Amino acid sequence: MVSKNQIKLITSLQQKKYRKQHELFFAEGIKVIQELLNSNFELYHLFSVEAIFDTLPQNKVTLISEAELKKISALTTPNTCLALFRIPEEKPVVESGLILALDDIRDPGNLGTILRLSDWFGISHVVCSNETVDIYNPKVVQATMGSITRVNVIYTDLEAFLDQTELPVFGTFMDGANIYEQKLPENGIIVMGNEANGISVAIEKHTTERISIPRFGDLQRTESLNVATATAIILSEFKRGLFSGR
Amino acid sequence: MVSKNQIKLITSLQQKKYRKQHELFFAEGIKVIQELLNSNFELYHLFSVEAIFDTLPQNKVTLISEAELKKISALTTPNTCLALFRIPEEKPVVESGLILALDDIRDPGNLGTILRLSDWFGISHVVCSNETVDIYNPKVVQATMGSITRVNVIYTDLEAFLDQTELPVFGTFMDGANIYEQKLPENGIIVMGNEANGISVAIEKHTTERISIPRFGDLQRTESLNVATATAIILSEFKRGLFSGR
Repeated sequence: MVSKNQIKLITSLQQKKYRKQHELFFAEGIKVIQELLNSNFELYHLFSVEAIFDTLPQNKVTLISEAELKKISALTTPNTCLALFRIPEEKPVVESGLILALDDIRDPGNLGTILRLSDWFGISHVVCSNETVDIYNPKVVQATMGSITRVNVIYTDLEAFLDQTELPVFGTFMDGANIYEQKLPENGIIVMGNEANGISVAIEKHTTERISIPRFGDLQRTESLNVATATAIILSEFKRGLFSGR
Repeated sequence: MVSKNQIKLITSLQQKKYRKQHELFFAEGIKVIQELLNSNFELYHLFSVEAIFDTLPQNKVTLISEAELKKISALTTPNTCLALFRIPEEKPVVESGLILALDDIRDPGNLGTILRLSDWFGISHVVCSNETVDIYNPKVVQATMGSITRVNVIYTDLEAFLDQTELPVFGTFMDGANIYEQKLPENGIIVMGNEANGISVAIEKHTTERISIPRFGDLQRTESLNVATATAIILSEFKRGLFSGR
């Protein structure tokens, strides 16, 4: 049974303001919830249509009907369970290895995919501008497929962060050096820009290396790559040297 | 003014069955429509809230209100225009260079992104299994961002297609050879599998080369890459030799 107040609380968590206020977020589906339970995230409460996670303390689990799940779910086709977790404190960024910096990524699906890619390529820290979509947005949480438990994401004044770093700062620009011809380092910050506008002028000033992904098709076009696929190609290029020799 | 019959026709085109029956599909937004107009696609009719494309024959253009656009649009936030185009005949696949083969890609966004990537990397032909989502699905058309005009997409019995080809057929599998350590050819077919199940057993039998994208993060996980980002990495690896020397 879900109470009216619980429904109100959970649906309010679709908005960042209420997530901040309650210091809670929610995830849906067995796979993502299992990954969160296996990690350092602290369960606040689980709502489920079946008794799935039977090792959890009874006072943290409520069995509900499918109709009730529909009321609290953010999905068009709700899964079998929804769990509330506490938003953990941000961990400090360790400035070594490769760090991804996101300059105003707005689409939840893109941020989720970028987190999943970071996880795959062993990127431990993702530094987001304050305008980047919130990692605890339900759509982002779903799209990360559990990577949210393995990649540290912080939100900060990106200009100030880049201003203080001693690492090289890579940005992708049309006039950048062909990424396939570069010797790419093992330590550095890779900035990915906003879906519509790319890297902002303020952030561009803090980049120290300009790179580009060359286009192989019809060169007359002005079309660009989607930011998540561009991130995939760039991370692959930075990391492949481990196998191919730099 | 949009007539009731026109509304009925256009909304029916969200379904493949009616697109086949009428041999029509629709696109929304100035950018995609402009690309289609600049290509070999034949305009059937344009509905627009403003007089934008002023060189078009008058009998092919209807000015409509925003409320009317909302009635015919497939988007949550309709653009300023929607255009119907004739579905062209499929062009034969030329079996040289790199060809992408899609084994039951179901998500419209993934297919759109894969088309955009194909365009970027100069892939001219994409061969889809008959179960792959339809390229003229409105969500796919939007996600291609105009690439639909530059990449030839055909639907066929993928097994039969792979059975007759003389090109090497690459498939991505967990136990495949590390893609970063391979000498990849300029001619070949790259098979990408279904979002949930990967490459099917029937298609796997027709692959001649097994490759894999190595994982750099926590190796305990079973997580996989999204099919569109995996396609990005693989196409980049096949094509980068043009610059870096194979």
